[in-house]
Amino acid sequence: MTAYEQLCGHFSKLANLNGAAAVLHWDAAAMMPTGGAGARAEQLATLSLLGHEMLCAGEIGDLLEQAENADLDPWETANLREMARKRRHATALPGDLVTAMSHAGSACEMAWRTAREADDFSALRPYLEEVVSLTIEAAAAKGAAFGCAPYDALLSQYEPGLQGSDIDRHFDTLADFLPDLLDRVLDRQTVPPAAPESMPVQAQERLSRRLLAALGFDFEHGRLDISLHPFTGGVADDVRLTTRYDEADPLGSLFPALHEGGHGMYERGLPAQWRRQPVGQAMGMAIHESQSLLIEMQVCRGDAFLGFLAPLLAEMGGLSGPAWEAPGLARRVRHVARSLIRVEADEVTYPLHVIHRYRLEKALLSGDLDVADLPGAWSEGMAHLLGIEVPSDRLGCMQDIHWMDGAFGYFPTYTLGAMAAAQIYRAAVTALPDLPEHLSLGDFNPLMSWLAEHVHGQGRLHRSADDLLQAVTGAPLNGAIFREHLEKRYLSG
Amino acid sequence: MTAYEQLCGHFSKLANLNGAAAVLHWDAAAMMPTGGAGARAEQLATLSLLGHEMLCAGEIGDLLEQAENADLDPWETANLREMARKRRHATALPGDLVTAMSHAGSACEMAWRTAREADDFSALRPYLEEVVSLTIEAAAAKGAAFGCAPYDALLSQYEPGLQGSDIDRHFDTLADFLPDLLDRVLDRQTVPPAAPESMPVQAQERLSRRLLAALGFDFEHGRLDISLHPFTGGVADDVRLTTRYDEADPLGSLFPALHEGGHGMYERGLPAQWRRQPVGQAMGMAIHESQSLLIEMQVCRGDAFLGFLAPLLAEMGGLSGPAWEAPGLARRVRHVARSLIRVEADEVTYPLHVIHRYRLEKALLSGDLDVADLPGAWSEGMAHLLGIEVPSDRLGCMQDIHWMDGAFGYFPTYTLGAMAAAQIYRAAVTALPDLPEHLSLGDFNPLMSWLAEHVHGQGRLHRSADDLLQAVTGAPLNGAIFREHLEKRYLSG
Repeated sequence: MTAYEQLCGHFSKLANLNGAAAVLHWDAAAMMPTGGAGARAEQLATLSLLGHEMLCAGEIGDLLEQAENADLDPWETANLREMARKRRHATALPGDLVTAMSHAGSACEMAWRTAREADDFSALRPYLEEVVSLTIEAAAAKGAAFGCAPYDALLSQYEPGLQGSDIDRHFDTLADFLPDLLDRVLDRQTVPPAAPESMPVQAQERLSRRLLAALGFDFEHGRLDISLHPFTGGVADDVRLTTRYDEADPLGSLFPALHEGGHGMYERGLPAQWRRQPVGQAMGMAIHESQSLLIEMQVCRGDAFLGFLAPLLAEMGGLSGPAWEAPGLARRVRHVARSLIRVEADEVTYPLHVIHRYRLEKALLSGDLDVADLPGAWSEGMAHLLGIEVPSDRLGCMQDIHWMDGAFGYFPTYTLGAMAAAQIYRAAVTALPDLPEHLSLGDFNPLMSWLAEHVHGQGRLHRSADDLLQAVTGAPLNGAIFREHLEKRYLSG
Repeated sequence: MTAYEQLCGHFSKLANLNGAAAVLHWDAAAMMPTGGAGARAEQLATLSLLGHEMLCAGEIGDLLEQAENADLDPWETANLREMARKRRHATALPGDLVTAMSHAGSACEMAWRTAREADDFSALRPYLEEVVSLTIEAAAAKGAAFGCAPYDALLSQYEPGLQGSDIDRHFDTLADFLPDLLDRVLDRQTVPPAAPESMPVQAQERLSRRLLAALGFDFEHGRLDISLHPFTGGVADDVRLTTRYDEADPLGSLFPALHEGGHGMYERGLPAQWRRQPVGQAMGMAIHESQSLLIEMQVCRGDAFLGFLAPLLAEMGGLSGPAWEAPGLARRVRHVARSLIRVEADEVTYPLHVIHRYRLEKALLSGDLDVADLPGAWSEGMAHLLGIEVPSDRLGCMQDIHWMDGAFGYFPTYTLGAMAAAQIYRAAVTALPDLPEHLSLGDFNPLMSWLAEHVHGQGRLHRSADDLLQAVTGAPLNGAIFREHLEKRYLSG
């Protein structure tokens, strides 16, 4: 076996370990009884440490050196590059720090569940301080190893090649025009027609499954279950989607299901011949989010799809009458509001929630902001960016799980994903001029085949999201397209 | 840290790895879509190999030597003994063989699901031949390493200290008296009163949960789900029970749920201060089975409990009338029949199914029986031991999963468990004279407290099932008590 082939064997085992952890994470959110949390945290910490040790083993370093001059095709070359990337991230951290972060994250997450419920930030504070302190340590170690800014080192865990300066550029532009655009949208929009909004949970579930089937989601290779916060987990051949059901809010289960379906189709569409190899994985979290938002926001809140959805809501969910016909439905699913909760935000205000978190997490990690001062800083930022008063920490700085688990550097990818979604969808519409007709019939095949070829099936062949976008759309990430999408959808007509 | 303390750290990680695998096994049976099987097999093979490598690491051998003369209390001493036992089992096998067995087992299990459905033994045969061949190799390696017979080496994976000669002694006695006892039971029993036998699945599930709650099963630390074959999985702090529901066969969900509940209570009752240490695990599979059969067979098919169950069947399941009152119910749940399927067998014929498999698996592993000749040998044995003709391999040698996965040496523990259940229950009744009154009210507390103290909480402190039985009942495994139980229940009154 060549050095490269031996590396493939090692990285395949690593993927198995990570796949096991992914299913256990899903189980913890969708199935596990509360009393299992301690044992699960221990299991995940051990899997995480073993993966770390596997990557740090001297043998991998030797093999990577030996493989450097091998004669490889472009996919193999990209695979080797991603192997080296993973190893760089692992060797930058001592094993003790990896274990400490895993334990601190689990402890903070458990403390957060109780503290959020009780709206008691002081109960969370020591746990979050520990997580922030360990993250600062990890960011410094990675920054020193990679020769980059500590925050950029964290970013690169989620989005290879992305730098804080790129985000600043994109987000400063957004922060410039969005508050004004928001004012104008709010000025002109009217309240959607009132309607009895109730659908039995079983009907919501049937309809969610019906819509996922229309997307092309393969239930032989995946499931749909319930969790507090919808997410996509599992592995490419066994994709676990979740949503949540509230009888009084049927659209609150359907759109999350469609969103996660977009993620799930990306996972399923990753190149099967590169399963369990680094190059066979998703490009990064921004492109991942672009695939969920392309489905949820670009397609499913657009007129063509709503023309397909409205009769289904009547037929399968008993929601009929003018309020639920396509024009009323459109006003309902595109209603914009200044709101407190990121995951419930519309696509106009969502980026402001993200910019807010991006600024705060940079301040936390640079030491400019103490955890103790987070609630105050949260309120200030929300007032400034969204013009809204925060009544409690539960609805403020304790609403998200990300920081609890040490996922700093992740938030920006949501909005970069929204921008990429607009850009990729425009390219798809250009390539497939009769796409709207297909979508109005619930036929996702042309769109999904196009995405499978140009995005999903590319895995991690490209060096960065910008390189992928260049190949798919002819240009790197271009925020103007997202702005044009928002202006067209919310300010014209 | 002392060598012993360092060992505890290593074995705690090993328990985490095994715990992760246990949850993934449960998921595969209860949740996973069929298309996830390949990825899951890879994940489990990697976890299994990593556990093997962890045990085989030279460091563990050094630490075990250093800890030999340490000053340890009896629990620590037993823990060290069990650590050494696990290492002996691991080091006896090369890593390649472990991986090959894991893959062959997964492949055979997948082939078996299809072949059984199609009643096509020839499609299964090459996969099973591979599993048998690898098992022979593993048994020979372990036998050589331990200085014992190859089959005894396999037995000791499931039941420390157990030898084939012990089983022969017990099983020859059973095979002597059971066929005659079976004739006498069949002669005197009458068909239970006919009754409309249907209960909605939701009512069966509610009643299963009600009965598990009566047992003391803690749903904060466990779940009840559905699988093709009921089993107990997960870990001690997160016990995953399964049963199955058939509207036309309500008792066919309730008794399996009670059986698995017995297993689950054992897992939950293992000594919490020894969680994730070898001495904190179950004594062995025979004692594990004794705890499920003590609940299902000794208690729940007995008159006292049936007096509690009958009104619940009426109230929660709508099953009323004379056929469902305690005397009719008793005839129903104690009905004995010569039958083809082990998992559906009553407690009189069940041991004959097990003896049959025990003899066949010994012949397969010694080379006296070729896999190709298994169907014929199966039919012969069933005719001889149970006096029944086998119409198909699906209802014959392809009915069980155990051999497909390489679990040779496991079957005997079912019947040793049934014998131990009778013996332990007699000791419990002697210690708790008013036990029947409590059970007739659905009050399991006194029994469960007694089992928690004398059996569950003992973990793996004792060297063998016989040693535990000696401590709990004053004697090693005594088959006469099981015989007396059968004669009293099925031939008296």
